[in-house]
Amino acid sequence: MSTRRGLLGRIAVLGLLAGGGPSLALAAPPKVDPLPSWNAGPAKTAITGYVARVTRPGADFVPPPERIAVFDNDGTLWAEQPIYFQFAFAMERIGQMVAKDPALRDKPAFAAIADRDQAAMAKLSEKDLIEAVFAVQVGLTTAEYQAVAKAWLDQARHPRFHTPYTALTYQPQLELLAYLRGAGFKTYIVSGGEVQFMRTFAEQAYGVPPEQVIGTSMTTKFEIRDGKGVLVAQPVLGSLDDGPGKPSNIDLHIGRPPLVAVGNSDGDLQMLQYSASSARPNLQILVHHDDAAREYAYDRQSKIGKLDKALDEAGARGWTVVSMKSDWKTVFAAKP
Amino acid sequence: MSTRRGLLGRIAVLGLLAGGGPSLALAAPPKVDPLPSWNAGPAKTAITGYVARVTRPGADFVPPPERIAVFDNDGTLWAEQPIYFQFAFAMERIGQMVAKDPALRDKPAFAAIADRDQAAMAKLSEKDLIEAVFAVQVGLTTAEYQAVAKAWLDQARHPRFHTPYTALTYQPQLELLAYLRGAGFKTYIVSGGEVQFMRTFAEQAYGVPPEQVIGTSMTTKFEIRDGKGVLVAQPVLGSLDDGPGKPSNIDLHIGRPPLVAVGNSDGDLQMLQYSASSARPNLQILVHHDDAAREYAYDRQSKIGKLDKALDEAGARGWTVVSMKSDWKTVFAAKP
Repeated sequence: MSTRRGLLGRIAVLGLLAGGGPSLALAAPPKVDPLPSWNAGPAKTAITGYVARVTRPGADFVPPPERIAVFDNDGTLWAEQPIYFQFAFAMERIGQMVAKDPALRDKPAFAAIADRDQAAMAKLSEKDLIEAVFAVQVGLTTAEYQAVAKAWLDQARHPRFHTPYTALTYQPQLELLAYLRGAGFKTYIVSGGEVQFMRTFAEQAYGVPPEQVIGTSMTTKFEIRDGKGVLVAQPVLGSLDDGPGKPSNIDLHIGRPPLVAVGNSDGDLQMLQYSASSARPNLQILVHHDDAAREYAYDRQSKIGKLDKALDEAGARGWTVVSMKSDWKTVFAAKP
Repeated sequence: MSTRRGLLGRIAVLGLLAGGGPSLALAAPPKVDPLPSWNAGPAKTAITGYVARVTRPGADFVPPPERIAVFDNDGTLWAEQPIYFQFAFAMERIGQMVAKDPALRDKPAFAAIADRDQAAMAKLSEKDLIEAVFAVQVGLTTAEYQAVAKAWLDQARHPRFHTPYTALTYQPQLELLAYLRGAGFKTYIVSGGEVQFMRTFAEQAYGVPPEQVIGTSMTTKFEIRDGKGVLVAQPVLGSLDDGPGKPSNIDLHIGRPPLVAVGNSDGDLQMLQYSASSARPNLQILVHHDDAAREYAYDRQSKIGKLDKALDEAGARGWTVVSMKSDWKTVFAAKP
């Protein structure tokens, strides 16, 4: 009798130490909420229900290699008001460039931005604006440009919250990224932001490595400088990763339809439509900025992050709309 | 005394069962050669020495996220003679297309290819040839095109070896891919071949998932067909993933310089130069086709897979040149 108890005791110890091996009579571990910054409600239930459905054996089980989740960045993983943070960077950088080389004023966009001339800026075409924003990297190697961007991110402060921009990532989304990764999903960023700019902070801020960041890109040219091979940004847009450009880039970079797609604006509509077209169970999520007190409230009429058609389609198709105000217990990852 | 022996015995058992936990007095496992199809020699030593150096603690240790290995495909992972296998596919497909729609004969490349007119084909410009090869997917969705490519791969046979083309992958390279992955490397294909074509077989043949296949690409357009979002190939080249296009695409898709780069032709030169520019320990490998008996022998004068400048640079910089004849015990993965 004592021998048998001794044996059982030893087996229980083995189970504990092996951490995953066979164990007898162990109590189920206490349930830890994987999304503590999400309030109970339909959005949270949709997310946890979906993940349970595709990870447990059954008809809806999805093999791990097909578990792909894509997230927009601006307005989805971090704030985007009063202007896209990358625009704030570009404006400051253009100011410095024009101060150094006044001939750059010949371009109306450069002069308007350098002078912070709101009226002139409002008149710029989208093409002129994009050209100006991306001009900040032309002629620089990827490493040089990322050093400039990182230096800016390290010292810049948001005009309303007075924190570094990277502190304005959304705590509930950091939890969602980690939760999906824990469930075997590969998490990607698919954003209109410039890809190399995002890579300067995405790994640290979101746990998303450079190879899982997809964005708008400039073409680059391979050169040997000081005996080293480098990539130099050219004044030619590679691809605009917005709207229908998002599914095109997902097809190019990932090669599988994403099963989870998370966005917040009409620029994400096609990415969500593409995800919803998968033959596998899938989940589409829209973050709705309805929280002027803690963040911002904007949707159908907003110049930045306009959410109109995608909101209608979400209603028609039963996509998950996240109310920042009621679904998120905490908004920012910032520790003020 | 008997108590102490009992305790030691139990600890040893724990170590065995936990499979990775602390263990006492266990014999080292027998050494299994991870590259059994590689003959002993400088190439094999360079590879295993490099992997040991970057994976064990010390000054040369490379953190796992930075362990990136890139492989060319045609002539590096599978054969490429007498013509790139994708060209064989395109030629057959163009023949079918012209038979269906004789108006396509208006394009000289289409007529020459459909008629297998060698003289006319030799006169085609590279642009005409590329246009013809990629025309086979224009108008098709990614899924439709991949179904066509897969159907061809399933039934086509190589003119000399009479095996399916996918049986002409190189056994030593399959072992190298697996060995690098076992050492924590993420293995990518970076090839001049068209990306969606390669993805139809890369996962099964090489264990490389779609998101780690980079290639030449056509632009695509997002459309809703029968209520589903699909990507339709357009008659506009996206990027030509050859020569200097390879490091550009590596920068765009991966965002880190690869530490291991493996190629076989001048089209891989810039990829190897880029890899050699990393601040981390790195390894460049060129496969030299010098085995006319078992495969093919070609280098400086070859129309396909020309290896000239890259061979000179390999000599000057001490890159690893693999002799197919003397370094590879077996060539093909084929089980005839």
